[in-house]
Amino acid sequence: MIDRIADIVGAKNVLTGPDLAPYSVDISGMRRAVPLAVARPASTQEVSDLVRLANELRLPVLPVGGRTGLTGGGVGEGALILSFDRMNAIRAIRPEARVAEVEAGAILSDIHDAAEAHDLVFPLTFGARGSARVGGFLGTNAGGSNVLRYGNTRDLVLGIEAVLPTGEIVDLMSGLHKNNSGYDLRHLLIGSEGTLGVITAATLKLMPKPGAYATAMVGMKSMSDALPLLNEVQKATGGLVEAFEYMPDSYVGNYLQLSPSHRLPFEDRHPVNILIEIGALAPRDCIPGDDGAIPVVSYLEDLLGRYLENGLIDDAVVARTEAQRREMWARREAASEIAGLQPVRVTNDVAVPLDLVETFLTRADATLQRVDPGATTSVVAHLGDGNVHYTVWPVTTTEAGKDAIVEAIEDIVIDLGGSFSAEHGIGTIKLGSMARRKDPAALSAMRAIKRALDPNGIMNPGKLLPPSNL
Amino acid sequence: MIDRIADIVGAKNVLTGPDLAPYSVDISGMRRAVPLAVARPASTQEVSDLVRLANELRLPVLPVGGRTGLTGGGVGEGALILSFDRMNAIRAIRPEARVAEVEAGAILSDIHDAAEAHDLVFPLTFGARGSARVGGFLGTNAGGSNVLRYGNTRDLVLGIEAVLPTGEIVDLMSGLHKNNSGYDLRHLLIGSEGTLGVITAATLKLMPKPGAYATAMVGMKSMSDALPLLNEVQKATGGLVEAFEYMPDSYVGNYLQLSPSHRLPFEDRHPVNILIEIGALAPRDCIPGDDGAIPVVSYLEDLLGRYLENGLIDDAVVARTEAQRREMWARREAASEIAGLQPVRVTNDVAVPLDLVETFLTRADATLQRVDPGATTSVVAHLGDGNVHYTVWPVTTTEAGKDAIVEAIEDIVIDLGGSFSAEHGIGTIKLGSMARRKDPAALSAMRAIKRALDPNGIMNPGKLLPPSNL
Repeated sequence: MIDRIADIVGAKNVLTGPDLAPYSVDISGMRRAVPLAVARPASTQEVSDLVRLANELRLPVLPVGGRTGLTGGGVGEGALILSFDRMNAIRAIRPEARVAEVEAGAILSDIHDAAEAHDLVFPLTFGARGSARVGGFLGTNAGGSNVLRYGNTRDLVLGIEAVLPTGEIVDLMSGLHKNNSGYDLRHLLIGSEGTLGVITAATLKLMPKPGAYATAMVGMKSMSDALPLLNEVQKATGGLVEAFEYMPDSYVGNYLQLSPSHRLPFEDRHPVNILIEIGALAPRDCIPGDDGAIPVVSYLEDLLGRYLENGLIDDAVVARTEAQRREMWARREAASEIAGLQPVRVTNDVAVPLDLVETFLTRADATLQRVDPGATTSVVAHLGDGNVHYTVWPVTTTEAGKDAIVEAIEDIVIDLGGSFSAEHGIGTIKLGSMARRKDPAALSAMRAIKRALDPNGIMNPGKLLPPSNL
Repeated sequence: MIDRIADIVGAKNVLTGPDLAPYSVDISGMRRAVPLAVARPASTQEVSDLVRLANELRLPVLPVGGRTGLTGGGVGEGALILSFDRMNAIRAIRPEARVAEVEAGAILSDIHDAAEAHDLVFPLTFGARGSARVGGFLGTNAGGSNVLRYGNTRDLVLGIEAVLPTGEIVDLMSGLHKNNSGYDLRHLLIGSEGTLGVITAATLKLMPKPGAYATAMVGMKSMSDALPLLNEVQKATGGLVEAFEYMPDSYVGNYLQLSPSHRLPFEDRHPVNILIEIGALAPRDCIPGDDGAIPVVSYLEDLLGRYLENGLIDDAVVARTEAQRREMWARREAASEIAGLQPVRVTNDVAVPLDLVETFLTRADATLQRVDPGATTSVVAHLGDGNVHYTVWPVTTTEAGKDAIVEAIEDIVIDLGGSFSAEHGIGTIKLGSMARRKDPAALSAMRAIKRALDPNGIMNPGKLLPPSNL
């Protein structure tokens, strides 16, 4: 079997035995499973050959990117792992058409750099951008900090190429903005977490690079003071807010714990800390002030000054240099590191309507103390999307206890009209939630689609779709 | 059978016999098929009951909206037509969340009005907006004139409710911007033309209403002069162009033929006529001019003045009043009426990369004269999307002759990296094109999905998916 894999990709591109160690645990360190082998294909044809072989032999196939996913998707017992590190080309940047053609193994930050060289941006971004690869962020329909302005991954993809579970290659690499020709297999594969096929390449949308950023940290007493700020800036700028991130004081405390030498945003501590970033195109870098149009940084300074005077906020710092801006972002992007301060976490990646985030947090904190007294949290939110990462450091050590926390948080989310799975996907850790919370007719349609496209069930079994007995 | 349908919706909401006449021909007048009956459900539950009954009796089901589609989707032989005229409620406009919750029968222009009352817009628009209904424009993923700025229908839909071919109701009416929980059935149903289920309601995105429009007609010698204009305005305004529409002189001539009293845009005739519209939010109504920020209308006037002086364009009129703006749009939106000047048309709704539209037109015109000497055309394009409506008035009267025209045009489109089906969908008229041009692996995956979700093949049979013997 290994020989036949080696025949396709070459012996030196097949990992087995001790080389499988890094592939046998996921990024959280909490989930382990030993694969059969890792194959490193160099072309779509090799991927096709590998999948065809796996389908013949009924081998489970797990395509992986940077393995930075947070829901247990990165490991698979007995699986043939397809690693895309050799298929990492940025095939083309077409600035006129504002598209990038990339292979599944291209790294997000490399795409950022390639686009910037043409004064364009690929606006998807999150902490793991230096490792995350195309196949991974398409497979999970990754979100991140700029969804508020630019949408999720799927909103940034014009076309894909993929290998179906039969080994057939589908070429849907359109760069066109209008292309209505049958069911949208692109959107079906995006977010399917490798359970319906293997994405091998994509055509991505690029956007004009903002010529000026205005970035600030704002301290205030309660979250109900934050939304009016967001709404006013959105209105004044016509929707140019790129990020609106929430960090409670406990997050700031945790950040200090990570390293006591870290600089804090303010001298005083505040219950609510907001990172706001506006991205203005240079020519549009004019927002009506009292004396006519003013640059976006001055606009934000004036606005926050006014809010301070009126007591609507308690503190504010606007970044004056790129280094200051990066420092603000580093604080926000330490979230996974902070969550990792405790070896055992119960993660809850949820979304609620924007104006109910505060309600959610109040109820979640109270509920948590009832379900698992003494548990602590690391909370951070893409507030502009209503997306809260409510990470619990539990006292309970039993699986049942941890499940009870998840269920209790979900109860609140569902009650508030929210989603139990916002941007990280289902993987293995949310299978119970899918079984409990997803519309049953939708679930059965998903299962029917899975059976239709992957009759032998070889594609990433055990992920995304809960077993029917759950 | 009719009795059982009447049991569900009430006898007075079932049409049969002579009442079926309007439902037996499509809007083009070219395609006829007599349905079994028309049922007018009043609720999602009634739709579910009807589909369940049809599935039991193996009755073909054809959900219809305003029946304004251009690809033959509006008629179905022996079908139980579901008409949504009684399910036309705009259930809610939630201005804070910027969403509209609408039933499948809500009319597009009613949604426009309801959004405007809150200073918001639902930006999807096209000529048939006074008749087109939610289920229709979602089912076909309709495009239109504002795709350039806001995307196609699917980009404007946050959630849907639908009835699957089994009669099961799926509730995916999320208003959230992040909701990764399994396969995206919403995007699978959008654009599936009623072949996978019946969309019964939707949650639509609303956008801030532009506070100022700048609209102009521009006359020039060749299309290669048009793209630099588009690119300059997009750059200066940061992407505020809402529409960039192309009408050749022949279109203007045809428009006069429709009614000789019509006013033309210019005193002189020009080979290329462009309708450009910019939508600026009032606060952003400032674009850097020589003397600081200027309103968007002045910006456009100054720019076109400069283009005129430099001989880059030959003529320009900027609308000074809403009436003038509407007159410009009326001319563009007469396209279907103009196409209807001849009883027999061969329509080609295609897309090519933006910078290849001129190449496409030159090659198409030459090819047409070779394939069907003497044939004339009515051409109009959403130039900003590379989407050309190349309507042929053929000399040939045979089906084979007309097919030859379609195939010849498609050859050019494919050669230029374009799409044979841009925004109108497949219906029945593009089944041959689907069979010839669509990626075969994609087609077989679509067929597998169809069989999985609709094993009895009741949903809109004969549409979208070509029979395997084609």
